[in-house]
Amino acid sequence: MPADLGQTFDALADSHRRAVVALLRQEPRRSGDLAQALSMNHPTMSRHLRVLRKAGLVQEEIDEEDARVRVYSLRPEPFAELRSWLDEVESFWTDQLGSFKAHAERRGKTRS
Amino acid sequence: MPADLGQTFDALADSHRRAVVALLRQEPRRSGDLAQALSMNHPTMSRHLRVLRKAGLVQEEIDEEDARVRVYSLRPEPFAELRSWLDEVESFWTDQLGSFKAHAERRGKTRS
Repeated sequence: MPADLGQTFDALADSHRRAVVALLRQEPRRSGDLAQALSMNHPTMSRHLRVLRKAGLVQEEIDEEDARVRVYSLRPEPFAELRSWLDEVESFWTDQLGSFKAHAERRGKTRS
Repeated sequence: MPADLGQTFDALADSHRRAVVALLRQEPRRSGDLAQALSMNHPTMSRHLRVLRKAGLVQEEIDEEDARVRVYSLRPEPFAELRSWLDEVESFWTDQLGSFKAHAERRGKTRS
């Protein structure tokens, strides 16, 4: 299930799907429990879970206690990918801060 | 220009807009330069810049050399907000790793 960054952002643009991620962060959960926790009907929850699965953000497993039931959990990979993208973007500010510091230190040296 | 996380994710779901962010990461740029760098026509670039501005990801300033020209740069706030959301989600894995380590250490102690 390889995910591209666009799919990740798209899946997480919806507040209900971010709420699902927040719930799954704590522990794997059944679709029905997720629907109940977010006061959502089952078809709507199924649709959100399908989007999250397609983006590779969650995985589906068969419940050990009941083969008819599916249990969902988070997959770390897309979150790691998102973080490395963010690291790259934010390195800009770190660089800026670094240059500023170096500049300030040079000025400090000239003055002393 | 307060941004919500949904708007941030939505704006960044588009690969062209992520390309704009990547370019602005290096330095502020004019709309025309961005359009040229990404082989995009001006109205399309304007539309993408409007989405990015609405989400608070970029800011628009008047060019010092030409008042008719607008210069775009990144705003750090939504990226910082995105990072703190990601930190929260990923704390799950860190916690898991921590529990696993503690468990392994306890086992190690019992054995020795």
